[in-house]
Order: sequence, then structure tokens, then C-alpha cells
Amino acid sequence: MDASPSASSAARVQIALGERSYPIVIGAGLFDAPDSYAGLPRAASALIVTNTTLAPLYAGRLQQALAGRYGAVHTVVLPDGEAYKTWETLNLVFDALLSHGCDRKTVLFALGGGVVGDITGFAAASYMRGVPFVQVPTTLLAQVDSSVGGKTGINHPLGKNMVGAFYQPQLVVCDLGVLKTLPPRELGAGLAEVIKYGPIADAAFLDWIEAHLDALRAGDPAALAHAVRRSCEIKAEVVGQDEREGGLRAILNFGHTFGHAIEAGLGYGAWLHGEGVGCGMVMAARLSARLGLLDEPAVARIARLVERAGLPTVAPVLDAADNAGRYLALMRLDKKAEAGEIKFVLIDGIGKAVVRGAPDALVREVIDASCA
Amino acid sequence: MDASPSASSAARVQIALGERSYPIVIGAGLFDAPDSYAGLPRAASALIVTNTTLAPLYAGRLQQALAGRYGAVHTVVLPDGEAYKTWETLNLVFDALLSHGCDRKTVLFALGGGVVGDITGFAAASYMRGVPFVQVPTTLLAQVDSSVGGKTGINHPLGKNMVGAFYQPQLVVCDLGVLKTLPPRELGAGLAEVIKYGPIADAAFLDWIEAHLDALRAGDPAALAHAVRRSCEIKAEVVGQDEREGGLRAILNFGHTFGHAIEAGLGYGAWLHGEGVGCGMVMAARLSARLGLLDEPAVARIARLVERAGLPTVAPVLDAADNAGRYLALMRLDKKAEAGEIKFVLIDGIGKAVVRGAPDALVREVIDASCA
Repeated sequence: MDASPSASSAARVQIALGERSYPIVIGAGLFDAPDSYAGLPRAASALIVTNTTLAPLYAGRLQQALAGRYGAVHTVVLPDGEAYKTWETLNLVFDALLSHGCDRKTVLFALGGGVVGDITGFAAASYMRGVPFVQVPTTLLAQVDSSVGGKTGINHPLGKNMVGAFYQPQLVVCDLGVLKTLPPRELGAGLAEVIKYGPIADAAFLDWIEAHLDALRAGDPAALAHAVRRSCEIKAEVVGQDEREGGLRAILNFGHTFGHAIEAGLGYGAWLHGEGVGCGMVMAARLSARLGLLDEPAVARIARLVERAGLPTVAPVLDAADNAGRYLALMRLDKKAEAGEIKFVLIDGIGKAVVRGAPDALVREVIDASCA
Repeated sequence: MDASPSASSAARVQIALGERSYPIVIGAGLFDAPDSYAGLPRAASALIVTNTTLAPLYAGRLQQALAGRYGAVHTVVLPDGEAYKTWETLNLVFDALLSHGCDRKTVLFALGGGVVGDITGFAAASYMRGVPFVQVPTTLLAQVDSSVGGKTGINHPLGKNMVGAFYQPQLVVCDLGVLKTLPPRELGAGLAEVIKYGPIADAAFLDWIEAHLDALRAGDPAALAHAVRRSCEIKAEVVGQDEREGGLRAILNFGHTFGHAIEAGLGYGAWLHGEGVGCGMVMAARLSARLGLLDEPAVARIARLVERAGLPTVAPVLDAADNAGRYLALMRLDKKAEAGEIKFVLIDGIGKAVVRGAPDALVREVIDASCA
């Protein structure tokens, strides 16, 4: 057993949900250190779920780290990308579990970004009506957002994440070392979810992000460590108060109502999720301003930061004939919508979010002003 | 509003699960009486999920009963039969929900037998990560077993109910009137799950079933009312103690380990689920006897009752070359199995069940002695 010094210096954020509580550990060199998994119950088998891009880089190292805890450690390799966040891909996980004779004690390990994490989590929620799972997020986006909080699921052609479960992992291992190999476009997409936490919850964190954005884009380890930790702390605070999104938790969806419409409207995978969220935050900030909640300098501040992160701030045209109508139709399928009324996460002064409806005419103006 | 007299005389069994508690109401003339649904929250829309056999009989009447509570009541009609308890059929429900713009408040109504109930429950668990649903079971099997307790799911080619969720309904409406049109084969299949409750939990109920089996097969309303009520009471007691099958709840699977192997081995739908369970109970009783838990007269008593219910007591050959091996392989995929050891629900004297493993050699003897 390798008692890695980085493991012992890891930061720890606790998600407090009673009997479903679990830790997020954050540090370099964690994912392939057997000690990182010391708190998990032993079992006859484990299944690593990863994708074609990550398998050659990391699957063998994780398998080795887990070999001492499980009688057999199997691996299933999924196709890479949001376009594959489908039932067909999910079913590959069930096929692997059943063909290896995995039982109710089998532990699933999600080794990958948001797509792998969401699919693995939903597979764990559903296989034999629930088996334990662990998140090992390999992208910044997954480390600061999607691996934490128990939202799992797959896409439907008509809407993103429409089929899924609230299902918490046993543990989240955020290894900052793996971010070194992350392509710049993926790093930028992750920064969208980091930036998000400022406007919705923490004005001081927004100041910090502005001061450290260049360091973050350059992959500076200390800056990334702080960004991941503070993001997880804010998310833990919100999820601990509202696990199943009865209310407060919806604020974490800032930028996502517009963003999901872009993703679904262009076809999953054309824009990265974080790119949709980045552009969506600018649109939601503009809508906040039109409703008198936010002043124009604050809108410009958010737009500038999104741009500095390398993310798009001009929204795509989804329908040449009736672009705003197409956006509205897609957003009416948003999970926050109720009786056909779209609910937007809006910024009521930097550091505070509100969730509310808005007149279609105002939303159309924002779409028209935001599209290329 | 039709304040049906039968609704007011309905029996009521409560499933006590804290904030997930709900009532089962049992009586004649309930399913199309608006009052039966009076306790449910109002919403903009509802979706009735039913099948091709039941839609012409009952869907319109349920729709009318719900019209006053929901702005729109939609219906989706699934193909009928265990062979369709698949992802493809489940997806028809998601397609309907999304094409009608259903939101997180939309209520699903499962109008049908076990297949419709299991699919609808899993759809409700997964659509937007969870919407409310109501069970309106139309078969005896669904009324006494599958609609109660929150086990939902679909089959995988390699095993029954391998993908699903524990997800409780808001309400179960058992209308004894609809059992009048149930084909005799379906009624017999339901009796398997009624008989089950005697050996595992209630010797006096087994005596009662023996005395009233002819009345039950003839569709006698008073006999059916008692059978449904007592079955639901026993199930409520067990589920209230162990919602997620950490231990005790597994006793409800008496006959199901062998039965599921028969169902999967023959191809879903060849035997009805209740037929597999009936034959499986005889096999499990024989295994109990070989392990010294049950005496031969008690085994004969269970076999005789299964036979009187019109259910098979001779098991099918699943593989001419290695029949017992095929049964064992299928049973090793059972959800109760752990590290490759099959766990059987065995009878330790009438009225008491135990869950434990058994030597392969003994299991093989039972299979050999039970197959045609």
C-alpha cells in the first residue's frame, strides 16, 4: 500500500446528507493511490466505467489501485462524448455488470468527465435497484460540479438529462494531477461552472476568479486547487440544504436554461456543456438586467469573464425562421418549468440568485440581442 | 362528483414509510370514482399509462374520473405482456411525457397489471429524476403484490427486473370490480402471490386460502376482498420494516429465485410471472425439506395448493444437455446472490421464512426431481 504524501495533504469537503453523507477529497496524486479508497466497504467485485479517451491513460492505474480491495476489478469502456449520453451507452454498463455476474455489493467507479459520471451514477442507481458507486472525475467541470451532489442521468432527444435519478456516490476523488492532460477547450468548459458560483453565491469568490483566471487557464496547481475546493464547498452547502431540488438547489442551474437549449438545439456534443453554460450565463445575466435585478456593469463583468475563459458569448441561431420561438420551445421542456412557464435562474445583485419566470417578450429580446 | 358508496366502504391499508407513506384502498367501483383520487395534489397534467388490452376497457373511464383534477389527462398505450417489459417500451412513456410537455408535477397513473405498474413506476422514478405516480392495478397479482411496496423496473435479456428503482407511489387503488373480467389464467397467476404469504408469514392465512381457494378461483367478491386485504397487510408489515431489501423483505421473494430462472430461461412471457412463482414455490419447499427445515406433508400441502390454483408444479427443462447447470447459472444472476452464492427463500415451518444458501448438489437434486 502506497501511503502517498499527497493523499494525506488532501483537502476534504463533506456533503452532509444524513445517512447519504460522503466526502470529496481534493489533491494531486489521489486517483491511483490505494489509500484514497480505504474507507470503502470491501466487495467481491468492482467495475470501472470509463471512455475510449481515458482508458489508455488511467484505467490500468485505477485498476491496480483497487486490486487489493476487490476480488475482481472489471472495466467497461464507453464511447466518448455528450452525443453518447444515451440509453444505448448506459446499457453497455448493464451488459458488463451482468456478464461479469456483478451483484448488489459490486462498486462502480466512474472514471471520466460529466458524461461518464452521469451515466455511471444512473447505472448504479438502477442496477438491481441500486449499488454503491464512486466518482473519480477527470475533468475540471466534473470536479467542480457534475460529480458532486448526486444528479445522474442520460439525455433524451427532446431534452438534456430528462431521464435519471438523484443518487449519491459513496466518495468523490478529485485528483488535480489529471487536469494537467486536460485539453484547453475542456479546461475552459470547466471554468464556466467555476465562474457560476460567484454570481449565484459568493461575490468574493468572483473577485478571486477574476484575479486568477489567467493562472487557472494556465493550469496553475495552487489556483486550480482553490477553485475546486471553493466550488465544492459552495455546492456542498446548497445540496446539503436541498438534495432533490425542491427549491434552493435550482440556483446551481444558472446559465443552464439557455445553455441546455443551445446543447439540445445544436445536437448534443456540438458545443461542450460548459460552453453552453458560459453563453447561457451571459444571456441569463442580460435577462436579469432587463428585469431590473442586475446593473449593466455587472452584466458586462460576467460577459467579460466568460470571454476570458475562452467560452462563447454569442449564442447560435437554432432556427433561421423563428429563432427565439425555437429557444422558447426548447426551454419550456426544462425541468424547472411548471405548467408551461419557464423558470430562470437570475442574478439579483452579484452573490445572490433568484428563480422566477419572465415575460416571453423580454426573453425574446435577450435571445435576439445574444445571437449571431 | 360521484361520491360512490363503494368508495366510502373501501378497506384501507397504510404503507408506513415516514414521508413516503401512502394508502392502499381496496373495494369495488373505486377506479373510476373521482373521490378515490381526492387526496392527491392537483397538477397541470396527468398521464395514464396502460396497455392495448386494457385501454379500450378502462382508459376512458379513468380519464373521465381524473378530468376534474388535472388540466390535461393524456394516455399512452403500451404493448401487452412480459416480453415488452423492456427499455424500448419504457421509452414510449418518456416520449409521451416529453411530447406533451409534462413537467415535474405531472402525475403518472399505472392502469394495468405488473408489467404496466413496474414500467410506469420506473418511468416516474426516472422522468426528470422523479415525478409522482399512482398505481391502479387491474390484475389480482398486481393488487396483492407488485403494485405495493415501490419495486419498479424492467427486464434485461440476462435477468428479470435487473434495472429499476425503489420508488413509492402516492396511492394504490385496488378495484375488485375489474377482477371480474380477468381471464382465469391471470387469476391463477395472481393466486400464486396470495398463496405465498401463508408459508412465509401467516399459517392461519394459509388455512383460510385452502378453505377458500375454490371461491377465489370462481371470483367470489368477498373471498377476493379478504385475500387482497390480508396480502396487502402482510406486505405492508414487511415493507414498512425493510423498504430497500436490506434483509427481511427478501422473504417476499419465496418461489421467485426458481421462478425468475424459469421466466428468463423460457423467454419472458412464455410462462406468466405467477406461474413461475407457483412452480418455484414448490421447488423452494422441496429444497427446504432437503435441508431439514420443512417436513414432507407441508411440502405436499404447498404443492397441492399450487396445483388447485391451476398453476404448474412441474418445472420446464431449460437445457437438454445440462438442465440443472442452466438453472444454476440463471439463478446466480438473481439479485439476492452475493459473490456467486445463490440465496434461497426457504420455509422453516409453515409461517416462517429464512434466506440462506444451499449446496449446489442439493439444488441440482431438487431441479432434477421437479423437471418434466
